[in-house]
Amino acid sequence: MSDRPILHEHAASGNCYKVRLTAAFVGVPLDRREYDIMKGETRTPEFLRDVNANGRIPVLQVGDRFIPESNAACHYLADGTLLIPGEAFGHADMLRWMFWEQYNHEPNIATLRFWMRSVGLEGLNDAQRLQMAPKRQAGNAALKLMDEHLSGRDWFVGDAISLADICLFAYTHVADEADFDLELYPNVIRWMEQIMTQPGYIPMDA
Amino acid sequence: MSDRPILHEHAASGNCYKVRLTAAFVGVPLDRREYDIMKGETRTPEFLRDVNANGRIPVLQVGDRFIPESNAACHYLADGTLLIPGEAFGHADMLRWMFWEQYNHEPNIATLRFWMRSVGLEGLNDAQRLQMAPKRQAGNAALKLMDEHLSGRDWFVGDAISLADICLFAYTHVADEADFDLELYPNVIRWMEQIMTQPGYIPMDA
Repeated sequence: MSDRPILHEHAASGNCYKVRLTAAFVGVPLDRREYDIMKGETRTPEFLRDVNANGRIPVLQVGDRFIPESNAACHYLADGTLLIPGEAFGHADMLRWMFWEQYNHEPNIATLRFWMRSVGLEGLNDAQRLQMAPKRQAGNAALKLMDEHLSGRDWFVGDAISLADICLFAYTHVADEADFDLELYPNVIRWMEQIMTQPGYIPMDA
Repeated sequence: MSDRPILHEHAASGNCYKVRLTAAFVGVPLDRREYDIMKGETRTPEFLRDVNANGRIPVLQVGDRFIPESNAACHYLADGTLLIPGEAFGHADMLRWMFWEQYNHEPNIATLRFWMRSVGLEGLNDAQRLQMAPKRQAGNAALKLMDEHLSGRDWFVGDAISLADICLFAYTHVADEADFDLELYPNVIRWMEQIMTQPGYIPMDA
């Protein structure tokens, strides 16, 4: 039996890609187990009992211990590497962008992508349909905030790539799949190109 | 001029209370600046330029540097203390609960509290009104998941209080203000009582 960490995932999920991209940058091989979220494979009694009571992927398994929440799994893999700033302010500043990603970016951009690509507009209920416009607006506000922050900067925190960049990259670089126009955000495009040319980079479909 | 950290806040916000409670537990005095979020005081051009381009509180100011996102501010204050587990798995496990809090707990329980207490039901738009029932259901699911995790456990991570407990406590202990019935979650009540009897504890209205 391999002692590699096991990624319980759905490969098309940006949250799962974050974990694979972090592992690639730090040179940790992962075993991968795919779940079909549209068939409810992460809501089975076995999954809820053995992997994640919250019924979601990704979950990083390390031996017999489990780390749900994509950004926490990235933090585990990158602990002690240059992807996490060593001093208190830089560490907190990196986490600030990771919390912001989960609160202001993912629920808008990733959710619209999921609704448009996977669920389909005809499958949405009334509450979801009424959230399309506010999520579109909030998603563009998130991209604009990123673009302004990256004006005159190469990376989100300090002067080196960190988990903040990796975690924000995951859903930003596929935002066009939710009909966001990334051409409006030139600093974001420059920053994405930098990430894609870093040593160790892997694309989402690798 | 004081060299204390400055908390830019709205005192009734659980996200702001987290930062005050963390500071109290680690013994760091804070200066406090209050903003009336109902009057848009965190969306002024000055606030967006000087404090947080994302227009939200809390923001922790340390000298001329700023840390938005409540859980990131807590991490800065607790860095190097026993409130953050020292090894990689424990650290990630703590962050797992803090990311979960911002994704699965706060948008349901805190948002319902804000809508019911501050905005008022008559002030909600149609999209918000349709989200009341799903947020109620998701909030109860979050409390149930916490209750089950705390079965036979004193703290969320390992065997000591950590930032995970502090960050989850903030909105849980006022969930009744959003009409959640905490009596349904006896392990949560026991855990809250433990936090409230820890040395250094301060209540929300202190």
